[in-house]
Amino acid sequence: MAKHPQQKIDQHYLQLIIFSLGVLLWFTPVPEGLRPEAWQLLSIFIVTILSVIIKALSLFTSSILALSVAVLTGLLTPEQAYSGFSEDFILLILVALLIARGVIKSGLGKRIAFIIIKKIGKSSLGLSYSIILADIFIAPAFPSNTARSGVLYPIINALAHDNDSRVADGTRKKLGSFLMMSSMAGLTLSSTLWLTAMVANPAGAAMAKKFGIEITFASWALAASLPVIILFLLIPWLICKVYPPEVKQTPEAPIIAQDVLLHMGKFHKNEWIMSITFILIVFLWSMSEYWGINKTAVALLGVGILMMTNIFTLDDMKQEGGALETLIWFAILFTLSAYLNKFGFMEWAGTHISDNLIGFSWPIVYVGLIIGYVLMHYFFVSQTAHMLALFGIFLETGINAGVPGELMALMLLFATNFSAIIAPQGSSANVIFAGSGYMEADEIYKIGGIITAVNTFIFLTLGTSWILLIM
Amino acid sequence: MAKHPQQKIDQHYLQLIIFSLGVLLWFTPVPEGLRPEAWQLLSIFIVTILSVIIKALSLFTSSILALSVAVLTGLLTPEQAYSGFSEDFILLILVALLIARGVIKSGLGKRIAFIIIKKIGKSSLGLSYSIILADIFIAPAFPSNTARSGVLYPIINALAHDNDSRVADGTRKKLGSFLMMSSMAGLTLSSTLWLTAMVANPAGAAMAKKFGIEITFASWALAASLPVIILFLLIPWLICKVYPPEVKQTPEAPIIAQDVLLHMGKFHKNEWIMSITFILIVFLWSMSEYWGINKTAVALLGVGILMMTNIFTLDDMKQEGGALETLIWFAILFTLSAYLNKFGFMEWAGTHISDNLIGFSWPIVYVGLIIGYVLMHYFFVSQTAHMLALFGIFLETGINAGVPGELMALMLLFATNFSAIIAPQGSSANVIFAGSGYMEADEIYKIGGIITAVNTFIFLTLGTSWILLIM
Repeated sequence: MAKHPQQKIDQHYLQLIIFSLGVLLWFTPVPEGLRPEAWQLLSIFIVTILSVIIKALSLFTSSILALSVAVLTGLLTPEQAYSGFSEDFILLILVALLIARGVIKSGLGKRIAFIIIKKIGKSSLGLSYSIILADIFIAPAFPSNTARSGVLYPIINALAHDNDSRVADGTRKKLGSFLMMSSMAGLTLSSTLWLTAMVANPAGAAMAKKFGIEITFASWALAASLPVIILFLLIPWLICKVYPPEVKQTPEAPIIAQDVLLHMGKFHKNEWIMSITFILIVFLWSMSEYWGINKTAVALLGVGILMMTNIFTLDDMKQEGGALETLIWFAILFTLSAYLNKFGFMEWAGTHISDNLIGFSWPIVYVGLIIGYVLMHYFFVSQTAHMLALFGIFLETGINAGVPGELMALMLLFATNFSAIIAPQGSSANVIFAGSGYMEADEIYKIGGIITAVNTFIFLTLGTSWILLIM
Repeated sequence: MAKHPQQKIDQHYLQLIIFSLGVLLWFTPVPEGLRPEAWQLLSIFIVTILSVIIKALSLFTSSILALSVAVLTGLLTPEQAYSGFSEDFILLILVALLIARGVIKSGLGKRIAFIIIKKIGKSSLGLSYSIILADIFIAPAFPSNTARSGVLYPIINALAHDNDSRVADGTRKKLGSFLMMSSMAGLTLSSTLWLTAMVANPAGAAMAKKFGIEITFASWALAASLPVIILFLLIPWLICKVYPPEVKQTPEAPIIAQDVLLHMGKFHKNEWIMSITFILIVFLWSMSEYWGINKTAVALLGVGILMMTNIFTLDDMKQEGGALETLIWFAILFTLSAYLNKFGFMEWAGTHISDNLIGFSWPIVYVGLIIGYVLMHYFFVSQTAHMLALFGIFLETGINAGVPGELMALMLLFATNFSAIIAPQGSSANVIFAGSGYMEADEIYKIGGIITAVNTFIFLTLGTSWILLIM
């Protein structure tokens, strides 16, 4: 895709500006209490993210340049720098992308997509509500939102694909972009609703116990229920306004779908193999936390089966450069964020936010802490890392200022989930969608930012009143 | 590419046989002195490699299944299993593959290819000699054969590409397959010739010093010179016999090339950018050992520049699924081999080979040790790992049996290099060629096996006499 020359020049100006900013930040005197390496890595991280938001660079280009600079300046050792590439859950996303391709290639995706369209395909908004609802229903039995995104994605991808909304031919915005964005937003809600819907949730509940705060599956679900229900109703409608699908109403779609399904005839052999493999994978994923099975190994086994049965072939693999792109940028951003944390920046910033709130009345401290906690998610590439780094400090500050402990704890844990869409790399559950090509990175920053703001607003107002009422 | 049904059934039979063999091996009583986990991992490793050689599975499929089984059976922890993905030199290969694509896309590859064809393009054999000679000349200043393969590959790839020998359209055997195989064979020779042409060479020389054996740059080069010169003359001719290019003579090629070059006109902007970037990368690579620069970070910087200048784009990246495939199988085989070593198999096998040779006269011990050392390379996915694991044991056994120390040490270090082509994963320098698609994995096993046998034979006969003469 050739770019307009003017646009190219503009982009080079933007690159120059953002690199100058980076150099400036790097050589700015280090704030007190911060290690120089934390400050330098922060400079790199800010430039990386900003250059994506202002479209000076793609997520891929900014990430590889960032890692290169971090290594060549000696800020990170090679071992540290490349450690993200062997992270279990990052490889899980990579392999899940391959499985999703198998779902389409086998014809199973097409069939499922047309069955869904036949039943509820009259409007794009209806489709999006149905997907989120399905996610919310399976979530309590699925303690990994990454795996859940790996289950939902192939179906959504097929839905978009078979509604003639594709990345390759420039029709991504017809339906696919909208559905992907909605599902990503839906995952923040399903993870917020259930104690068992995200790995960091029970870990956070256990940490709260040390502060004498008891959080059970039922008390969590009750506290989250009202704000999540309101947001469930609100968010797809909102996305439909701010990031609309080009096709909103498709009254004839169910009739066409019925026709296509008739022509497809009975389940083909490849669809059977794909169905059984997919059910096997999903079953083992949902059991993985209880049986101690590694989800990535299960996914690899699945791809192995698809390869042996020629559903997914080496020729298909050659087309999967997009999966490689996703692996590279996500592994790099994960590493940068992890070392920002290890170098002490997260704790420093958390303490700073806390310190600045001392002396105010508890409602102000409470709101300040939650907003600070949400904004800090820009620096995190893992919800669990975010929770582990900041939950303790923020909870303690809140309790000391007089915020009711249960309210503070619950709201911080909810925020760990509902802020996940603030950036493409904000959750491993986002990444498979962000890697699909249906949404551009700067779009996720913008729309994800709006959704996070609305999530935060509803939770701070309605959610807080509700929790205080039932507490 | 649809397969003949009969062929498919045959392949499934082969898969069944090889999996049964794996199960059988796994449950065979563990040989004395070997830890059960070493034996089980060995079963997996043997099945993985055999299934590729007999074409029951592709290298990719067999690797992912192997890793999946290793993790699901609890033989490797997830951390151990995925560790290969963050190995510095493995990522270097991945990024080098992207740079190679930039060389072609910029038009620079085409120009270099046609300049070479114009000068020496009358025969495929002539081309192959020239490439190996170029490699041998740059090798002493290039202590990483991986980086050297990253320098040669883009040019060879362009040479094949612009001689209408491509992977995608089934013309790989016209010229490309032959050139890639020759270059891989050439790399074993260039690495054998110079003390400074491969990272494990000086490390091995340092280890030899502990046995009182002094090896200098000059004594190494002198000892290696005669057998390497003979093999340099012999190997390309041999490959031309056993793995012939479909087009051998192209008398009109230089004329066509001159014509094309005339039409190409002056260096274009993209060619300038690519040249400067490539020279920068190669310069920093060649300095990396002295200046302590990380080669992978340099390569990432190079890709970053190519991205910013739109020589390599995100659309190109989408086509790079082959690079992902290479990353996956190589990282997995590397990990399996590393843990085969950590679990003690390599030491056990090395000691076994040594013990069985005790009591024989020194020439028999010497030949036995060298052949054993070469064959053991089937289990190694890194020349350095091979040297580190077995050099000490084998050298000691040889010296104790009366083999002249210098002969034993030099020959083992030479063998570390000349056996590298025994398998696609035998050296990180192979992998970029093996990942090109120009050669199938089973072809590399077969032709690489022949080349290794000839290398070993010449070194054991002529090479040994020569070293004894000059010692």
